[in-house]
This record gives sequence, structure tokens and C-alpha cells, in this order.
Amino acid sequence: MSTPETSNPDFAIEGHGDISVGVRGAGASGDGSASATRITPGNALRPEDIALEIRKGQVKPTKDVAEYALRIGDDGLILAQRLGHWISRAPELEEDVALGNIALDQLGHARSFLTYAGAAWDKSEDDLAYFRREHEFRSAHLFEQPNGDFAVTIARQFIVSYYQFELYKRLTGSTDATIAAIAAKALKEVDYHRDHSAQWVLRLAGGTEESRRRIVQAFRLVWPYVEELFEDDELTARLAESGAGVQPSSLRADFDQLTGEILSEAGLDEELNLERIPQSLGGGRQGKHSEHLGYLLAEMQVLAREHPGASW
Amino acid sequence: MSTPETSNPDFAIEGHGDISVGVRGAGASGDGSASATRITPGNALRPEDIALEIRKGQVKPTKDVAEYALRIGDDGLILAQRLGHWISRAPELEEDVALGNIALDQLGHARSFLTYAGAAWDKSEDDLAYFRREHEFRSAHLFEQPNGDFAVTIARQFIVSYYQFELYKRLTGSTDATIAAIAAKALKEVDYHRDHSAQWVLRLAGGTEESRRRIVQAFRLVWPYVEELFEDDELTARLAESGAGVQPSSLRADFDQLTGEILSEAGLDEELNLERIPQSLGGGRQGKHSEHLGYLLAEMQVLAREHPGASW
Repeated sequence: MSTPETSNPDFAIEGHGDISVGVRGAGASGDGSASATRITPGNALRPEDIALEIRKGQVKPTKDVAEYALRIGDDGLILAQRLGHWISRAPELEEDVALGNIALDQLGHARSFLTYAGAAWDKSEDDLAYFRREHEFRSAHLFEQPNGDFAVTIARQFIVSYYQFELYKRLTGSTDATIAAIAAKALKEVDYHRDHSAQWVLRLAGGTEESRRRIVQAFRLVWPYVEELFEDDELTARLAESGAGVQPSSLRADFDQLTGEILSEAGLDEELNLERIPQSLGGGRQGKHSEHLGYLLAEMQVLAREHPGASW
Repeated sequence: MSTPETSNPDFAIEGHGDISVGVRGAGASGDGSASATRITPGNALRPEDIALEIRKGQVKPTKDVAEYALRIGDDGLILAQRLGHWISRAPELEEDVALGNIALDQLGHARSFLTYAGAAWDKSEDDLAYFRREHEFRSAHLFEQPNGDFAVTIARQFIVSYYQFELYKRLTGSTDATIAAIAAKALKEVDYHRDHSAQWVLRLAGGTEESRRRIVQAFRLVWPYVEELFEDDELTARLAESGAGVQPSSLRADFDQLTGEILSEAGLDEELNLERIPQSLGGGRQGKHSEHLGYLLAEMQVLAREHPGASW
């Protein structure tokens, strides 16, 4: 894991500048390994590549696509900040490494989405991450939820990973080639996150009485933030119409089925009775956030804001 | 970076259980690419592999080697905890990824050294990380120093990386095959850390007036902890005698020369006048620590200690 650029052997960099290719009508890659875009293993997409395409004037998102990329990018950015706290604090050192890797994957996806979004307003990824105010962030509330204990972090990650997998799978077929390319790269990594969190849900549910009690409690704490992930609005309706994005509600059936299978295998479904858990109001996509985000941003932005425009 | 095990393409896992090979008299690999041990790129060493060798009774450290591995492992563990805090808080998102990767590299090295050390007392890496008390940690004081601002983190990392590089380079020739193998794996990664931190030292020193002021201040803050890294004692004398370890003082000349070259290139050497900076008393190798370590351990150990012996 010596350099960020080469840290994923599945995505070794062999060529740049291939992102603006036609993918209209490309099918979603169900297993994450057979992307229909030209972004294949060995033809990876880094934020720097996207920035270069932007500077060369070869890609530019529509305002709608930029708003959409901002939502997805903010989700990953906020989650990465939360997960980073676990380095050397998980219940096992091996797990520290896993959560650290997931944090860096999420940050990588966020950087790509934010870099692309920024092109619409002539902003860099750093401008967007460090110099927006709370009400300008578009992440859903689930992502800003505190880490809580390890079980809460796992329950949150379980929901996030299954949601993101369905989203990115569909976005590999986006009519916006850059969105499709970022999604294709992210899909494989999120597939691992899904497996990782599912294994932990099973392990905690089938572990000790205490670990089972904790994972049940954890799901009760974070499940109220599920509904917001799948809410449609005017923006997603327009994007679904143009083929650049998807209606979040269209992801829900697959999400429910796949998470349901794991929760059932864990013997948690009846005890949790998820349908009965009241859902939070949401509002993150419109910039309405819980008080947690303010504290998180204060920590995240302090250094860059102390020295705006400085070369470091 | 989907799985921790395959995250470094230079060290893809092709075979296990090859660590107990003879490396007596193997030369140090100056550039980090031509290890004289059988641990080559494509023949990597994970903590799990070491644990397996231990269980099979194929490797066991002497008490001296275990104490030595504890020192080196604790250095990495404590540093990883410090660096993890930077995820989503560096002055650039790209830098978040870099510091996150360095944290995970350090944690990986620590896990290997602690796993091996633990075999002497029938303890796991997790036992050693989460259930020792402050005075049982053997890390040097430099590693527990607070992150401070970004410049302090970089100055600390610069010193650490150049020290670790010299140490691991020499340890690839250890008569203890497991120590040699872990060092060979770590060397390449630390070589990248060295380059990373040196580039930042140059960039901050040559950047704005403010960034230069900060890096100067940072070196004044952390340089007092350099001397401790190179202190010999009875343990290192015995290990140097047997060929399993090295006298820390024997690494100092190369460290001074190489760090001196960068500091000179940065135009910092005269301003810093490092010889004049008083050195701290040290004591970390004997379990005497600053108050910082207590807070760090409290955070790191709380979860595992809440549920000792629990399956999670």
C-alpha cells in the first residue's frame, strides 16, 4: 500500500484520459467485475485524471449532474471522516486495517465525485470539501451519524454498502460517461465493503449475548436514516429521465431483498421488525443536517481554513 | 484497496509459511528492492502467516528478540493511532489518502512485530495492543507526540521514516528469520514514507512565509525526541552481538547524513541548528512515558477492555 495510486491491484493505472467514452445504453454490471464502460481493471480513474480532463475541456457536468455528484461525493467524504477514527481503536487490530481501508476507499470515491462536480462551478475538490458551509453539504443523515460503539459503525456500514452497491451498479450505465466511470471503479470496492459488513453482522448476531444485544441496538439506532437514502425528488427525476442518474426509490427493492437475506440469516429480522421502526425526516439532500455535521466539519475544515489559499 | 491482504501490489500473496528460512549473513538491501531473504515481492508476510507459524511451532522468538520486537511494534502501533486522526483533516484530500495509507502501513508492520513478540508469552497481537498498561509499552517518546498542526505531523514523520528505513534495512540481515522477513516487507513501504515526508518538508520550507515558519517551529518541537531513538542499552548490545538486532547508535551516522541532505536542500539547516536543540530524557524503552500516551491508550483500548474475551 505504498502509494495511493497503486494501492489497489485490481485497478493498476495503465492509461489516462479515456473517460470520455460513449457508454449510452451500457448495461449495469451485476457482479461488479464486467463493467460495460471502458473503465476496466487496468484502466483506472483517479481524481487527478478527472481534473486533467476538466482542464482540457473534455468533460463538464451539467448543473444537474454536478448537484447529483455532490450528493454522492459528500456521502463518501463524511463517512470517511467518521471511519478514520477507528484506526487503532477497533476490537481487533486486523479490523483496524479493514476499517481504515474502507475509509480510504470512500474518500477516494468522494474525491472523484467532488472533482467532477466542482467543474460546474470552477471549484476544486478541496474547495468543496474545506470551504463549504454546513448547509451546502448534500450528504444524507446516515453518513453523519456518530460512530457509537463498534456495532453501530458496522450497522451503518452495512446499510451504506448495500445502498451504494445498488447505486453504483446502476450508475455504471449512466449516460454521463464520467459518472459511469467513477461508479465502475467504486463498485468493486463497495462490493468488498458489503461483504465485510455482512460478515460482521452475522458474527455479532451469532456471537455472545452481549454482541447480539449490541448489534440489535445498533440497527435500531441507525435504521431511521434508511428511508432518506431512497427518496426521489425533482433532481433525481430529471436525471433518471435523461439517463444520467437514477431514482433512489428504484434501488429500494433490491436493497431490501439483499439486506433482508443477511438479517434473516443472522436471525435478526423478527427481533428487529424493521418495518416498525419510525423513519427520520431527512433533509440532507437539501442541506438540512443534524447537529453532528457541524462538529464534524469543524474538525475537518479547521486546518484548511486557517490558511485559505496557502500552498499547503 | 479492496482487501487488506492484497492492498499492496508489490507484495501479492503467492505462498505462505516460507518465513522460517535461513538468512544468516544476508546483506542489507540498500534500495529496498532486492531483499536477500526469501521474502520477495509476491511472497509476502502477513501477521496471520506469522501466527500460523507460531501455532505450528515453527517459529518462536527468544525473550530478547521478543522484547526487541515489542519496542519496534509499539512504535508503529502508537504512530498509526496518531496518523489515523488525519483522515479527512489534512490540508488536501489527496494528502488525507497519503497519511491514511501511511497509518495503515505502520499498523501492518506493528501487527507483525507484535504477533511475533507475543509468541514468547503466549499472547496475541490484540492482547498486547489492548491489554497492556501504559508502563508496559516500549515505544519511544517521539511516536506518542501529539499531531499538532500538519507541519508537526510531517516533521515527526520525516524523522520516523528515516530512522525506520535505516533500522529495517539493517534488520533484513537479522539472524532471526522472522525479524528479517518482517523488516524486508516493511522496508519498501517505509521508503515511500521517507520520500513522502521529505517532499513535504521541502514544500513547506519553500512555500509561503507562514508554511516555512510552521515547519521550522515543528522541527524545534519534535527534534528533542531524536536522541532516544538511537540510544543503546543492554538488550540491544546482546542482540547486536547475536546478530538478531542492531545497536541503535550504529544507525545514527546514516540518519544524520540523509536527513541533513534534505534539510540543507530545504535551506533549513542553519536556521534550525539542530545540534543546539536540547534532547529529552527518553525512557520509553523502559516503559516511562509522557502523559500523552495515557490519553492515547485510553481511547485505543476502551472498546476491547469493555468486553474482555468477547468474540468481537
